[in-house]
Amino acid sequence: MSELKETTLNSKEIFKGRIIDVYLEEVELPNGKTSTREIVKHPGAVAIIALTKDNKIVLVEQFRKPLERTLVEIPAGKVEKGEDPETTAKRELEEETGYTCEKLEPLISFYTSPGFADELVHLFIARDLVKLSEAAELDEDEFVEVMEVTMEEAQKLVESKRIYDAKTAFAVQYLQLLERRER
Amino acid sequence: MSELKETTLNSKEIFKGRIIDVYLEEVELPNGKTSTREIVKHPGAVAIIALTKDNKIVLVEQFRKPLERTLVEIPAGKVEKGEDPETTAKRELEEETGYTCEKLEPLISFYTSPGFADELVHLFIARDLVKLSEAAELDEDEFVEVMEVTMEEAQKLVESKRIYDAKTAFAVQYLQLLERRER
Repeated sequence: MSELKETTLNSKEIFKGRIIDVYLEEVELPNGKTSTREIVKHPGAVAIIALTKDNKIVLVEQFRKPLERTLVEIPAGKVEKGEDPETTAKRELEEETGYTCEKLEPLISFYTSPGFADELVHLFIARDLVKLSEAAELDEDEFVEVMEVTMEEAQKLVESKRIYDAKTAFAVQYLQLLERRER
Repeated sequence: MSELKETTLNSKEIFKGRIIDVYLEEVELPNGKTSTREIVKHPGAVAIIALTKDNKIVLVEQFRKPLERTLVEIPAGKVEKGEDPETTAKRELEEETGYTCEKLEPLISFYTSPGFADELVHLFIARDLVKLSEAAELDEDEFVEVMEVTMEEAQKLVESKRIYDAKTAFAVQYLQLLERRER
């Protein structure tokens, strides 16, 4: 594995944003030649497969500026500095859906775009959701529409490409696999 | 849905790279207030679930500079300008693994990080791989190690976090689901 390593010769900060930072790095390749790498730093995120007591999946529709369209996704959000992912997950669930839960079970974590970004998504599952008497507040630049769908409806949202992102596609597939295991 | 739309007031180019471009946009929110969006533009990518005649999965290990470590992934690569994704997929399969195939079946496409990037990954499945007599050439800054694993071994690579990215986690789960359907 070590013969695959790329050593940083020089790192230049291109951009420091509210959410991402961008770096341009000059690297030494395994064969001694040099190349450049464009790198996006991201604080990481959480996402939650949220299931109601009658086994519906809670999804949120929101406008995604990079795509200039809305997507239907599982609830998600970025990890705040110093926050542990489970705390973020519970907070985002409450803010985005108005539901809370007793227990969040960690399922899997994965990097979303390892070629150019270090974003790591921590995926949780929350069962037996309880409606909050008072909805938690969203961030002031966040607008979402909540929906509750059956497994069959979620599958249709994948086919119609209203569900169209990796974490939600993974989540729907996970629930399909779970259904088959439980049969 | 239209009440979720964010209108661009101003778009500033921060960076134009070999692979990504970065923009900072000022937007008008649905409630009339303004905010900023940090946006990474990416040409899109393909990824291939590649299965040998004896039903092993072909994976590639490579160093991922944003993570400062290697990952084991399904073969993948970015779409060149004007190239259709199926052509990219066949080329990347040949370059990265030394295998080719008669037919690539499109499985699903998904955005990897819709919060800050427009990268769309097109996932294909290739069966009955045929070894090329002469290996295709990798890009000159690309170094990979090829491995062929069973379904069980792939699952262990997920557990040990050597497989640790969204598209490969999705692919392994897809194959698990397929196995169950075929039983």
